[in-house]
Amino acid sequence: MSKVCFGIDVGGTTIKCGLFETNGNVIDKWEIITRTENGGENILPDIAATVMSKMQLKGYKKEDVAGVGVGIPGPVMAGVVPVAVNLHWGETNVEYELGKLLDMKVRAGNDANVAALGEQWKGGGEGKENMIMVTLGTGVGGGIIVGGKILEGAHGAGGEIGHAHVDDNITDPCNCGKCGCLEQVASATGVVRLAKEELLANPVVPSALRDTEVTSKAVFDAYKDGDQLAAKIVNRFAKYLGTALATFACVTDPEIIVIGGGVSKAGESLTNIVGNYYRKQAFSACAGTPIVLAKLGNDAGIYGAARLVL
Amino acid sequence: MSKVCFGIDVGGTTIKCGLFETNGNVIDKWEIITRTENGGENILPDIAATVMSKMQLKGYKKEDVAGVGVGIPGPVMAGVVPVAVNLHWGETNVEYELGKLLDMKVRAGNDANVAALGEQWKGGGEGKENMIMVTLGTGVGGGIIVGGKILEGAHGAGGEIGHAHVDDNITDPCNCGKCGCLEQVASATGVVRLAKEELLANPVVPSALRDTEVTSKAVFDAYKDGDQLAAKIVNRFAKYLGTALATFACVTDPEIIVIGGGVSKAGESLTNIVGNYYRKQAFSACAGTPIVLAKLGNDAGIYGAARLVL
Repeated sequence: MSKVCFGIDVGGTTIKCGLFETNGNVIDKWEIITRTENGGENILPDIAATVMSKMQLKGYKKEDVAGVGVGIPGPVMAGVVPVAVNLHWGETNVEYELGKLLDMKVRAGNDANVAALGEQWKGGGEGKENMIMVTLGTGVGGGIIVGGKILEGAHGAGGEIGHAHVDDNITDPCNCGKCGCLEQVASATGVVRLAKEELLANPVVPSALRDTEVTSKAVFDAYKDGDQLAAKIVNRFAKYLGTALATFACVTDPEIIVIGGGVSKAGESLTNIVGNYYRKQAFSACAGTPIVLAKLGNDAGIYGAARLVL
Repeated sequence: MSKVCFGIDVGGTTIKCGLFETNGNVIDKWEIITRTENGGENILPDIAATVMSKMQLKGYKKEDVAGVGVGIPGPVMAGVVPVAVNLHWGETNVEYELGKLLDMKVRAGNDANVAALGEQWKGGGEGKENMIMVTLGTGVGGGIIVGGKILEGAHGAGGEIGHAHVDDNITDPCNCGKCGCLEQVASATGVVRLAKEELLANPVVPSALRDTEVTSKAVFDAYKDGDQLAAKIVNRFAKYLGTALATFACVTDPEIIVIGGGVSKAGESLTNIVGNYYRKQAFSACAGTPIVLAKLGNDAGIYGAARLVL
């Protein structure tokens, strides 16, 4: 029986790698550079090389390894990436090509979905078969787990909840090209957008945010210090996110909702206030669904990738 | 090998019954009365009796029957109904109790979810593994199919998309107790609500709707006749529904969206205008997802119930 597996989380600048026991215990973690030149042609060979070198170093044979899971920053359908802009890739059959290089089982998934799977396996949603994860970073990503598996979707867009439309009054476009997406108000940049609007709209209200660089962290720090204007900003953010989560919950009715990403470092003061708005709009059967913080941080991707092959 | 199966759709006044070949061809359809007195204690025995009498009439033995599927107007989790108000039921283990009466395999599901499964099997979503169905009747029901199966949810509330929050300005409560649900603006009664608002707000705009009982059908008929005020009403309805469907689509990324229920009798003029608003807000990868009409009408429930046991 296989003893170990690899989880690989491919980003635009680095590739995070993990070697795991099949029960989820991490044996080793490391990173390599993402070489995107020449259409990213080195990326899969580099992954194959680092996996093989790690196996040699640790003395694992092929039969010891259950396989290699890979998270990709782009849509993935049945192991094939149609395009991954950050990797300079056109259509790439990751499972086939990396599988050929390694002569091993390879499974690939979208990075946000894979991170959700990681949190479901060993993080904030451990042991829950039905979960919604939302990742509040520069953008808003998501992953939907149903029956313990990633909901990939018909076009690889399952869990693209950052692009739910939440506001008709936003007239500048989101990165996706539409206007009024959740990402525009609930990401780190979204919090800054709301902060700038409130600072402008309330010129005489005193606020610590007037004397500092306005970041998502600064807004939540000021909120925790009792800053009135920060409270207004955080309430707007939480209303958008909590209401959207309530809508997502009446689609999949999850056991748990997990919030991760940089913005979630604000901690329980964030999940508490988002939960207040969530419960206000959630369908009664779903209103008790816990909203918790992600636990694995930047390692969610390697955990989830490893889980893909098990 | 089993040749046939039964699909039973339990409503508050009648129980629709279907006998099917296992390939989905319908052999017979009939109805019995729903006897809700005494806590609905007769309902499952009545179903057992009608199934056994039909078997006898048609000369089927137990080994000819794959099983009996049942759609229930209430939440269903793993075959158990916690409560079904319209049937006067408290907690009822439908699969166990009906299975004991019949000594056959029984599978139960929520009626809206089961209708979605019917449409996915032999209706508007035939052959699609990943589908969203929305049923626009007196209320707004829904069913989510993922991997060819009903997404039941952690509390039996998967697909309760009628209770997605879509408008902060609605202050009277929905049947669910919250305010501003999709059901309040996209059901037959929701269309009437919008119509009354527009008739009041535009007292001098001429409209055929001023001289008739305002129903959903009257609104769509007037819209097709070029009535300006009806167009305003239908556009509001379509914006609510199309935008909500775009949000649901970024959760599960379906291959197809199916619209059923009485309001959908308006036909392609409804799917066309809802599609316009859907495409305006849908995430690019999902924007081409077809929005089609349901095909099975009131039979969706018996088809889906039969499918449950196959």
